[in-house]
Amino acid sequence: MKVLIAGLGLIGGSLALVLRDHGIASEILGVENSETHAAEALKLGLADRIVGFDEGVAEADLIVLATPVDTIPLMAVKALNRVNDKQVVMDVGSIKGELCEVVSMHAHRGRFVAAHPMWGTEYSGPQAARHDAFTGRNVVLCDTAHSDPDAVACVEAIFRELKCPIIYMDPEEHDLHTAYVSHISHVTSFALALTVLEKEREEQHIFDLAGGGFESTVRLAKSSASTWVPILLRNKYNVLDVLREHIHQLQIMRKMLERDDAEGLRGLMERANTIQRIIK
Amino acid sequence: MKVLIAGLGLIGGSLALVLRDHGIASEILGVENSETHAAEALKLGLADRIVGFDEGVAEADLIVLATPVDTIPLMAVKALNRVNDKQVVMDVGSIKGELCEVVSMHAHRGRFVAAHPMWGTEYSGPQAARHDAFTGRNVVLCDTAHSDPDAVACVEAIFRELKCPIIYMDPEEHDLHTAYVSHISHVTSFALALTVLEKEREEQHIFDLAGGGFESTVRLAKSSASTWVPILLRNKYNVLDVLREHIHQLQIMRKMLERDDAEGLRGLMERANTIQRIIK
Repeated sequence: MKVLIAGLGLIGGSLALVLRDHGIASEILGVENSETHAAEALKLGLADRIVGFDEGVAEADLIVLATPVDTIPLMAVKALNRVNDKQVVMDVGSIKGELCEVVSMHAHRGRFVAAHPMWGTEYSGPQAARHDAFTGRNVVLCDTAHSDPDAVACVEAIFRELKCPIIYMDPEEHDLHTAYVSHISHVTSFALALTVLEKEREEQHIFDLAGGGFESTVRLAKSSASTWVPILLRNKYNVLDVLREHIHQLQIMRKMLERDDAEGLRGLMERANTIQRIIK
Repeated sequence: MKVLIAGLGLIGGSLALVLRDHGIASEILGVENSETHAAEALKLGLADRIVGFDEGVAEADLIVLATPVDTIPLMAVKALNRVNDKQVVMDVGSIKGELCEVVSMHAHRGRFVAAHPMWGTEYSGPQAARHDAFTGRNVVLCDTAHSDPDAVACVEAIFRELKCPIIYMDPEEHDLHTAYVSHISHVTSFALALTVLEKEREEQHIFDLAGGGFESTVRLAKSSASTWVPILLRNKYNVLDVLREHIHQLQIMRKMLERDDAEGLRGLMERANTIQRIIK
């Protein structure tokens, strides 16, 4: 299968590696706006050729959109404008509501499949691409009832080969739940890094004292603004809703601490502990 | 060396394993209030015998206090009341201010060394003890000028053998900086778990959608309330100070998101990214 990947960063680049490792892609064409990234991607073997978007769409069997989420809806429309009824367009972005609405009335809507593999790291760019990406992680497919059965089957076959369990959701449902379990984690991690940088003027102390716990909670603060500003803005109302709740929970803990309320704090922590029922 | 360890949980139990692995402890006596933990500790080989505190102090060359931080100051005094000028008392707790003040005027103050190895996991109890604990992590020693040189040398030799770089700090400095880089991480992680449990009523969705990012930020929420309530309360003013700053940072992000301030969010994230200069 000839695959075009628009955006050869963490997600697109990893997909390139993985599609090749599994023998799914016989040839990979890449679209990259950044010349530096294009050169890196070629050097890392993420793509056989860097092409223009229209040129790539004309050639490819599968077109994957892996650019920041603010650019995906228009690219999806432009790709659908050009595909025939054998080609498949898939995105791998973190936001689905706007995208699925934008393509909903397109004459070639059937050729589009909205996919979100639940994998990522805090790194970005072609160098961040990994051969062990995606494997075993869930992938969410949205609005598959509006995609042609053969297009859905093509995408399902790929993720089945990658051992990614497939979950089906409405786009609105997807955006709500990812705000709860992914987007808020990034917000808290960015804010925690800012907090520590603000309070701890002596960086040597951070370096000396930071244990695994700090590294783990602040890890996502290394994530790229180019990826995350559009995600938060595109999922604004869901993120604001969960962010307000998070600030509220912190204020409850603050008040308990101010009042030396050991029993209250114990109750909160024990409730928080129940998260281990759900995540390993 | 005969070692008494009071508290055979994550930290005390791990220290038992490591002291034995390195041939530092020839015999380990354990003090455990919980009968279940005492039985587990014996089964796991964390101690050769479970003894009463006074009995253990009478026998041991080195007495290690590894119980929750609210119990350490009084135990330190009781241990110092009983030791001779060859024995050493060391704690491994996360709070130093109150402890160092309590022992400051003790006639045997010189036999005491305040130590905090910067290692831990989110698990607790004897089963959480690990052979790979501490290695390579920094250890903070406080107020060593008030300890006898031979007592300091004994503790330093142990941590040098464990390949833990040694850092020297005032107790107040220690408590301030650990609030910034350790205690706040636990508060945010507990609050994040509570937020998600509050908003996401369908636990299956958390299970399905949680990627590595969520797991990483919420991992510390599995930590034990028995350990963390005393730490937060004993370091109340420092934790409140950094917690207020953290809530402030979240509110700034919230307002930027409400105003669709992409440039503002990008600026914050890029500043947060600088944390990677400091932590790997």
